[in-house]
Order: sequence, then C-alpha cells, then structure tokens
Amino acid sequence: MLGLERLSPAQIEAILDKAASFKESPPSDLLAGRTVAFLFSEPSTRTRSSFEMAAKRLGAEVLSFSAAGSSLAKGETILDTMRNLQAVGVTHFVVRHERSGVLEDLAPAVKACVVNAGDGWHEHPTQALLDVMTLRERWGGFKGRRVVVLGDIRHSRVARSNLFALKKLGAKVVFCGPTALVPDAFRDLGATVEHDLEKALKGADAVNVLRLQLERMEQGFVSSLSDYALAYQLTTERADLMKPDALVLHPGPMNRGVEISSEAADGPRSVILEQVANGVFVRMAVLALCEEARA
Amino acid sequence: MLGLERLSPAQIEAILDKAASFKESPPSDLLAGRTVAFLFSEPSTRTRSSFEMAAKRLGAEVLSFSAAGSSLAKGETILDTMRNLQAVGVTHFVVRHERSGVLEDLAPAVKACVVNAGDGWHEHPTQALLDVMTLRERWGGFKGRRVVVLGDIRHSRVARSNLFALKKLGAKVVFCGPTALVPDAFRDLGATVEHDLEKALKGADAVNVLRLQLERMEQGFVSSLSDYALAYQLTTERADLMKPDALVLHPGPMNRGVEISSEAADGPRSVILEQVANGVFVRMAVLALCEEARA
Amino acid sequence: MLGLERLSPAQIEAILDKAASFKESPPSDLLAGRTVAFLFSEPSTRTRSSFEMAAKRLGAEVLSFSAAGSSLAKGETILDTMRNLQAVGVTHFVVRHERSGVLEDLAPAVKACVVNAGDGWHEHPTQALLDVMTLRERWGGFKGRRVVVLGDIRHSRVARSNLFALKKLGAKVVFCGPTALVPDAFRDLGATVEHDLEKALKGADAVNVLRLQLERMEQGFVSSLSDYALAYQLTTERADLMKPDALVLHPGPMNRGVEISSEAADGPRSVILEQVANGVFVRMAVLALCEEARA
Repeated sequence: MLGLERLSPAQIEAILDKAASFKESPPSDLLAGRTVAFLFSEPSTRTRSSFEMAAKRLGAEVLSFSAAGSSLAKGETILDTMRNLQAVGVTHFVVRHERSGVLEDLAPAVKACVVNAGDGWHEHPTQALLDVMTLRERWGGFKGRRVVVLGDIRHSRVARSNLFALKKLGAKVVFCGPTALVPDAFRDLGATVEHDLEKALKGADAVNVLRLQLERMEQGFVSSLSDYALAYQLTTERADLMKPDALVLHPGPMNRGVEISSEAADGPRSVILEQVANGVFVRMAVLALCEEARA
Repeated sequence: MLGLERLSPAQIEAILDKAASFKESPPSDLLAGRTVAFLFSEPSTRTRSSFEMAAKRLGAEVLSFSAAGSSLAKGETILDTMRNLQAVGVTHFVVRHERSGVLEDLAPAVKACVVNAGDGWHEHPTQALLDVMTLRERWGGFKGRRVVVLGDIRHSRVARSNLFALKKLGAKVVFCGPTALVPDAFRDLGATVEHDLEKALKGADAVNVLRLQLERMEQGFVSSLSDYALAYQLTTERADLMKPDALVLHPGPMNRGVEISSEAADGPRSVILEQVANGVFVRMAVLALCEEARA
Repeated sequence: MLGLERLSPAQIEAILDKAASFKESPPSDLLAGRTVAFLFSEPSTRTRSSFEMAAKRLGAEVLSFSAAGSSLAKGETILDTMRNLQAVGVTHFVVRHERSGVLEDLAPAVKACVVNAGDGWHEHPTQALLDVMTLRERWGGFKGRRVVVLGDIRHSRVARSNLFALKKLGAKVVFCGPTALVPDAFRDLGATVEHDLEKALKGADAVNVLRLQLERMEQGFVSSLSDYALAYQLTTERADLMKPDALVLHPGPMNRGVEISSEAADGPRSVILEQVANGVFVRMAVLALCEEARA
C-alpha cells in the first residue's frame, strides 16, 4: 500500500467498505501471530498511534522499538533493516520517510506488507482514505461534490493523496492557497487551482485545511503568519460561504489561529475528530487487506 | 485524579483499600479493552514503568508511543493531542508535565481518565499515595504519627502531595531543610517547619528523604554538595534519633552520598523498595477507580 | 547469562539444543506473567527487536519503556534502577552497556535474570550463540572446522564471544585484519592471528565478517575506507578461496562496500539472514533457561 495514484476506484471503495465493516463490528485476532514494526524517520503522534491501535485491535503484536534512529543511524540501508526485521518475524512495516517515493524500490524487495505512512511530499494514502471515509459516511457518494484543499499544497503529501482519492471517487478538487504554495503546475494532476479563498469556498461541499509548517516563513514561501491568516485562515465566516451543510476537515496537527480559527476547528461543520476515529478503521482495513494479499 | 489537595480522607482511604485488595489478590482484565497513553514531557523511569505495569496487570493495552516530543513539538496544544488520542480510542491518560496545574483545565475537557504523574512543583499524587500505603501497612493508622519530609521542599511536588495525604489521614508533618529550600511560607499549608535536622528527627516515626536536584547548586540554593550533605544528609546515626522502629522512605531516584548515605538507604529502617512495589498497586487502584467513575 | 568465556561446552550445547527445539515447535506462554525490561545505553535495532520478539513468543510482557537515558541520566546507579524495576515486577533484564564487564557486579545483586546484550568490548554472548547455531545447522558439529573472524577484532565483543564459543565446540579460529586492529596479544586467547586475508581464507569453512566502525578512521586505526576495502573487504573472489561450501556470516549492521561487497553479502554462501532468524530462537532459549535456573 504505497499510494493511491495507481489504485482503481473499485480498490479504494473496497478499502472503505472493509473499514466501514470493521467500524460496524470490530474483528478480533485477524492478525494474531503477526507483528507490525514502525520505521519512522519523522515524528508523528496521530498516525503512529492510530496504526498501533489498528494493529492491536486486529490482534497483532507491535514491536515497541522504533528502528529509525538506531541501525539506520549507523549507516545500514533501510532495506537491510527491513530484511533483518523480516527475518526476526516482522510481517507488516509501517514506514514514514522524508524521501518521496522511497518505498517503490523497498516494497517489492521484501515479502512483508509495506504501508506508506507518509513519504516526503509524495503520498500519505491512509490519511486521504480516512478523509474520504469521513466524507462518504456523510454523503453516501461523491458525485457532484466539490472539495477545496486549502493551504500549502506544494509541500503536502496529504493534498496529493486527497486529490487522487477524491477524483477517482468522482468528486471535483480545488487547490487553494497563495501562488508560492499552490503552483499552477498542480493543474496537471487534475485539480482546479484558485488563489482567491472566497471564490474557492463559494458553494463548495467541504474544505480540507492543511497545516502550515511554520518553517515555510523562514523559507520565504509566506511573508508572515498574520498575512497568511488574513488571506487564507479558515474562519467560520469564510466556512459559511460553502453550502449550508458543508464540512470542515483538517489532517492535524492544527496550528489554531494560523490556518484555521478555533471557532472553525471546533464548530458544528467540523468533522476533525471523526477523521481521527475513522483513521483507526481505515488502517485496520489496509493492514488486513494487505495480509490477505500477502497470504 | 489530579491531586490530593481536594480529596477527602475517606477518598484517600478508599484508594488505599483498593490498592491493598489488589496486592492481596491481583484482578485480571478489569481494564480489558481499555488503552492507556503516556504523555510525558519530562523523563521518568520508575513512575512510567510502574504505571505501565499497573495498566498491563489490569489487562489494558498500553500505547507504546510517547506523544510528548512529537506533535507537541510541532506546536499542537496538549488538549488537541489528548482529544485526538481519545478519538483513536485512548481511555486513560497518564500525564507528566513541567507546568504546575496544567491538568486542571485539560481533564474536564476530555471524557477519558486523566491521572497526574507529576505537574511542575504542584502535585505527584500517586507518589504520595504509595508513601502512605507503605506507612499504613506498617502502622495500621496515622494517629499520633510524625513524619519528617527532608530536603528540597520548595521545588517538590512530592512534598506537597505527601503533606496533603498525611495531614488528611491524621499524621503530623515536619518540613526540614535549609532556609533557601524550605521557606517559612510552607507553614501556611499546615506543616511544621524546622531547619535543624537533629531536632526534626528526634522522636519522629518516619523520614521521607527527597532527592536533591543537582542543578539547585548552580541556581544558588545550595552552596555545595558537601555542605548540604554535612548538614542534611540522612545517615544511620541521624536516623537513629528517630523512634526505634522508625522508617526511612525515598521517592527515588537517589543520589547516594548526597541527600542519603548508602547505609541509610539500604539499612533495616529502609522501606524504599516496598514503596516501589506498592506503587504498582496504588496505580492499579487509581486507574481502576477512575474507570469506574468514568463508566 | 553474562558471557560465554566461563560456560562449558555442554552448557553451550544445551542452549543450542533448546534453541533448536524452539525452532522446531514454538512454545507458548513459557514466560507468561513474566516481564522483560531493556536497559540499553547504546542504540540497537536487531538485537533489541530480536530479544523483544523472543520475549513475546514466550508469552512475556515487555516493558516498552527503555530505562536508559531517563533515571540513569539523572545520576541514579544502574543497580538502583534494576532494583527498582525488579520491585515493580521485572523478572528479566536485557542489558547493553558501554562498560566492559559491568554486569559481573550487577547480576548477583538482583534476583531477576540478567542477559548480556553486549558490554563494551567484552562479550556479546547471544550473538555468538546465534552464529554457532547457524553453523551447527549446516555442519552438524565443529570438529575439524576452521572459522575466520575478519575485521576489527580489537574492539569487537562479537569476536571475543565467537572465539570462546567456537573453541569450546571444537573449531579452530583465525583472527584476521590489519595489525592495528588485530594485535598479536589476541593469540593468548587461543586464536591464530593472520594478517594476510588470502592466506587466512584459503581452505577455511566459514568467514564471519565484522562491521568496520567508521570512527576507526578518525581514530587512526585505518588510513582510509578504500585502503581497508582493498586489503580486507570480503568479495566473492576472496570468499571462493574458502572450501566450496564455505559460509559467509556477518553480525550486522553491514557497511556494504566497506568490509563486505554487496555480492558477497547477498550471494549463495551468505547465511546472514539465517543468523538473524536464529537469533530469536537463541534468545528464547536463553530467556527460558534463565527462568528455569531462577525458579
């Protein structure tokens, strides 16, 4: 499970169906005797906790030890680390890495399941799957729906994976943010690009607000946080430009008062905590389907 | 479970009774299906291991991943982290934080159990509970008992929680140490303050020796370790000023040769390892009672 | 289990037999109710993961928290840390420490099992046991066998433990590497010392290639990595100087292109991943036998 770009709509629906069925009636011990290892070279609370919870609910063991920063730090290749952990008995790898596309070469070289938990600016497939699961629960389907993805599109694996998932499922996607963070080139991926937030939001069905990495300021992509907030912070006023029952999503962690106001984050449109809860079921589905494919 | 200051004597006794019953006959699976997460922004061996052991003995899952230093480092508020982990399925938070009183606002904002594992200089309730459990096992009750708490009272959450617990249970408390570390203001909390160690120990029933943080020297609270040891180290000679069967406690980790001599730490009066063993039962009681209250 | 130097051949064979029986039919719950703690003051992926897997396959709990770097950092003695963890319920310690022989004093002072996972340049007994287990599976016995241990012998606990195990089991050991890294004094331990790699390999039954720590260059033991590789890298051509069915081992993590070529590491002689897999069974045997002795 390396990304959504190459999955078919039917494959994505199958994952969502499996996640929904797990949410309905949690299975026990589907992965008994299996062991999940985490290879995280970047910090993460929610993604890692969510995968750990998913693994445990399926009855799998979780290697408590995080390999990144140990032998990887000694200069071993990540492939040697994975082969070794596989020899020790690891059956599932959940990998976060700063290099885009790093898993394309690694996954075929091991027999274990390899799940992408975020690779550079490339993809973060389970995040996008939990986003679309949350939307599907509310909407049933995606026909005629328009979703605004707002913020630092340029550096966002979440934006890319969302685009792939939403388009495959039939929704329209608008990328919105300042020119420096939303280059026109993203149109080639099939999104509409709109730099005016009010225009983008008008009549939309949902907005997915991305975190603004604070280092973007130092890097010159953003002149100041208050300038950014002035033009692109999602406030309740702006959210009300969308359809009456339109939804607010955020992959977290949030910078309250920067890309999103606290009112918008906690308001009635917000499905942010539903996203988090659905994340566990989506990851259960991915781990379980991966095991079926492996066996 | 945020502190002892506002608990009634009956509530404290109820926790101790539950802990004693767990010590008698360990329960199994009282917390099956529950998940405990640790949010520690300060290092800890014994407190964390003890809580982890307590959780596992009750059949709970433990999220192996420590959230502090990850999303917290990314600027997310601790409340957002807790809400997210709750959405993932966490039912119990064990929190250590450098800010005194930080949990007062956090705990009411989540449905999960929140247990204070030490907040700044404020409280460390389970440490004090294991101290009084150890004393109660030896003494039966606290009437007429006098306990000296020795050392860096000023910066000690352990001293404060001990004071609250011991006074509520009927014991007298003497705070002892140099003027810089035991300000007279502590009398307002209901302790006796005594700067002369020999006087404080004479006829006492127990002494609880606090760790001297070595950075207190740099901060000018203590002129030198040897000066401190000369005046305030608990030696066996000094311990013998207490009643014949008086006890020596230490919350650990010890600086042997600084606040306590090795002979006193390992001598027949010492109940230091009993404290550690009781810590698991006290934490089992707190986690279980918290679950009852939550359900 | 502190080292192999003082074990008898029969004791080593008993561990290997137990490991082989576990590999044949994995036991369940031999260590149910037991708790394993890791005290690692040096990083490790494979050793730690392997022990963790071994512990879990035997039904033991694993304290997810690594004590090193917490209270140890606060100045507590390692013995106090171990006594405390024992009071909390820990029954098995797996310890890695930078000080050679540190466990000799510690182990007798606690009732728990203490397993050496590498102490300074002294011993790394379970690594050597998995090496000889792998060889024994292929060879049946060690009579008339000659094993070359190649590389930085001077700083290698793996080399020392291998020497003890192989000699006790009846094999001959050749230490090979540059003079600076293979001092003649090692002859006193019972190894042959040979600085010419081709001569050492000719007719040998196996070569165990040690990792070259890259900091050896800065320390002046090695002039450059390419010089080292030129004279001592195990290539397939050099490996072919050994007997036709001779084996290539490496304790990992590998520096591909330095002490071993990728072709040799992945070639048909290589049993490197078998070593890793056997590591779990050897560690299960050590943990289980230690428990029997403790009980």
